[in-house]
Amino acid sequence: MSAAFTLAIDAMGGDAAPGMVIEGLEIAAERHPEARFLLVGNEVALRPLLAGHKRAAHACTLRHTPDLVSGDMKPAAAVRLRTSSMRMAIDAVASGEAAGVVSAGNTGALLALAKIVIKTLPGIDRPAMAAIGPSARGDVVMLDLGANVACDTRNLVEFAVMGDVFARTVLGLTAPSIGLLNVGSEELKGDEQLREAAELLRASHIARQFRGFVEGHDIAAGTTDVIVTDGFTGNVALKTGEGALKLIGDLLRQVFRSSIAARIAYLLARPGLDRLREWLDPRRYNGAVMLGLNGVVVKSHGGTDAQGFAHAVDVAMDMVVHRFNEQIRDGMARIGELRAEAVPATP
Amino acid sequence: MSAAFTLAIDAMGGDAAPGMVIEGLEIAAERHPEARFLLVGNEVALRPLLAGHKRAAHACTLRHTPDLVSGDMKPAAAVRLRTSSMRMAIDAVASGEAAGVVSAGNTGALLALAKIVIKTLPGIDRPAMAAIGPSARGDVVMLDLGANVACDTRNLVEFAVMGDVFARTVLGLTAPSIGLLNVGSEELKGDEQLREAAELLRASHIARQFRGFVEGHDIAAGTTDVIVTDGFTGNVALKTGEGALKLIGDLLRQVFRSSIAARIAYLLARPGLDRLREWLDPRRYNGAVMLGLNGVVVKSHGGTDAQGFAHAVDVAMDMVVHRFNEQIRDGMARIGELRAEAVPATP
Repeated sequence: MSAAFTLAIDAMGGDAAPGMVIEGLEIAAERHPEARFLLVGNEVALRPLLAGHKRAAHACTLRHTPDLVSGDMKPAAAVRLRTSSMRMAIDAVASGEAAGVVSAGNTGALLALAKIVIKTLPGIDRPAMAAIGPSARGDVVMLDLGANVACDTRNLVEFAVMGDVFARTVLGLTAPSIGLLNVGSEELKGDEQLREAAELLRASHIARQFRGFVEGHDIAAGTTDVIVTDGFTGNVALKTGEGALKLIGDLLRQVFRSSIAARIAYLLARPGLDRLREWLDPRRYNGAVMLGLNGVVVKSHGGTDAQGFAHAVDVAMDMVVHRFNEQIRDGMARIGELRAEAVPATP
Repeated sequence: MSAAFTLAIDAMGGDAAPGMVIEGLEIAAERHPEARFLLVGNEVALRPLLAGHKRAAHACTLRHTPDLVSGDMKPAAAVRLRTSSMRMAIDAVASGEAAGVVSAGNTGALLALAKIVIKTLPGIDRPAMAAIGPSARGDVVMLDLGANVACDTRNLVEFAVMGDVFARTVLGLTAPSIGLLNVGSEELKGDEQLREAAELLRASHIARQFRGFVEGHDIAAGTTDVIVTDGFTGNVALKTGEGALKLIGDLLRQVFRSSIAARIAYLLARPGLDRLREWLDPRRYNGAVMLGLNGVVVKSHGGTDAQGFAHAVDVAMDMVVHRFNEQIRDGMARIGELRAEAVPATP
C-alpha cells in the first residue's frame, strides 16, 4: 500500500459508526479508485461489514483495536488512551504510513491528538479548523472555526495564508479573494490585532487577493471566497448561520403542510425546492479540516451519514492529491520574512 | 408637553428621512395616543410633511435646526457638531424634556453622543446594544450587538441583568431564561471571563433564569429568551444570521420564478409563505436599544421604511411606559453586592 494516496480512517468515530463509515468508504472507493484506506477499529464489528461492501473491502487494510474514544471523553483522557482507533489512525499519519486521517469522532479529542501526535508545520504557530459553506456567489471557506478561542495577529495572518491555499486546492480557485471578519461602523471597528493583521496582509504576497474587512452578512453573500477570523467568532458564526438555515427549513416544511393547496404547491415547486435543499445540504459541506499540521486531518460531522462521510473523504483526497501541505509551506516561507520584521513570534 | 411620554425624534436620520420619519410617526401616533414627539430637524423640510400627516402633526412639537449628522460622518466629528438634529434630540433627553430618543441615523455617532451626553446609569460600566429577533420558540433578545468590541466579566454580568429587564419589559416575559454565548466542546470552551461571568450569574438574583452556556445554533432555536455576548461576537452573529435568512429568501424567490408550475405553486402556498415572510420581516424587529443609559435610546435601521420606524417608536414607548431604567437600577442594586465581593470594578 503506497502512503501517498493512503488515508487512515477512524472506523469507530461518529454516531452511526462503524456501519456509516464502511458505507461511506464504499462510495468513496468508487470515486477515488487510486485511494487506499487504513481502516482502524474493532475487527469483530468491521469484518462482517466489509464482507457486504466489496469496493470498500478492496480498498481497505484493516488494523484491529478494541478501544475507541467515546463522544463524551475529555481530550486529556483521549490523549492518554494510546490504543484507541482515533489515536492509531493519527499515529499512522505521524509515522508516514498514511498521508491523512478522517474521523467522525469527538472533535476536542481529535484536535488535541492531532496537535500532539502529528505536530504543526514548520513556521505555523497554531493549526486552524476550516470548512466550506454555501453563499450567494458560490462556496466560501471560513477559518478558524474553533481550534483557537483567542488568536493574535500572527495567527490571523497564518490563517489567511492557509485559507488561500485551501481555497485554491479544494475549491479550485486561482486567486481566491480574502476578507478579515470585523464589525461595522467606524466607532466600533475591531481590535488592534485585526488592524495589524490587515496591514500585514496588505504587504504580503496575497495582498492583491486581500479585500480588507468584511462583516457577518458577507459570509452568506459570498463577498469574499475566504473569511478569516478567530476560533471563537468563527465557531459562533458557523453555528448561527446553520441555525438560521435550519429554522427557515423547518418553517417552510410547516408551510407546505399547512393546507391541501400548500401540499399541491409543494408538488408543483418540488424540482426547484429539491435543488435548493440539495444545494444547502449539510452533507455536501461535511468535512472540517485541521490546517497547519504535518498531515491532512479531516473531521467529519459526528451525526453524518454515509454520503456525508464520503464527502469528508473527498476533501481529504483533494488535499492529499494537490499536495496541500507543500503549498502551505511555500506560502509560509513567503510570509515569513514579512512577519519576522513586523510581528514578534509568540513563544 | 409632559416629559413622561415624550420622545425626542431625530427627523433627519436615515436613508429616506425625513419623509419616512413623518410617515412612521403618523402610524406611531395612532398606536400611542398618549405619546408626544419632540421633532428635531429642518423646518423647511418638515412643515410641508407635517401638513400632510395630521396625526403626526398633532403629536409633534417642532424644534428647528438646519444641521444634521451625515451617514458617513465620523463619531468624533458628530460629537463636535452641537447643532445637529441627532445631538439636539439627545440633548432633550439629557435635560429631562424627553424620556427617550429615536434616531435612524449614523450608529457610531448615536452611540458616541448618547454615552457622552446622556451618560450611563449609576453602577453600569458600559451601555450595550440590544435587539429582538425571531427564533423557533418565539422572540429572543440578544446583547451586546456592537457597542463594546471587548468585554470583561463585569460587562457580561451587567448585560445579563439588563437583558433580563429588557425581555420582561418589551417581550412581557415574567422570568426570561438567559444564556451566555460560548463555543462547543470541552477542549474549546471559552475564555476565563466567560467562566467567571457564569459563576457570578449562578450566585445572582437571576440564577434561576440562567441556563449556562449556549452556542450559535441556540439563537435561532430559541433555547433561551436572552442571549448574552460581547459586542464583537454579537454583531457578527446578528449579521451572519440576517445574511443567512436573506440568502435563503433570495433563493426561494428564484425557485418560485423558475417555471410556470412554480409560479402556480407560489400562488397556492401564498398565505403560508406570506405569514412566514411577515414573521421574519426585519421591520418587525427594527429598533436596537442602547441599554444602561440615563434615558431610552432606540436606534432604527438606517434603511428602514415608515413601518419599521413606527416599530422602533413602539420599542421606545414600551420602555418608557414600563419605566425600564428604574427596573435596571433595581437589578443593578441586587447584583451590586455580589460583584463588589467577587470582581474588582474596572476604573
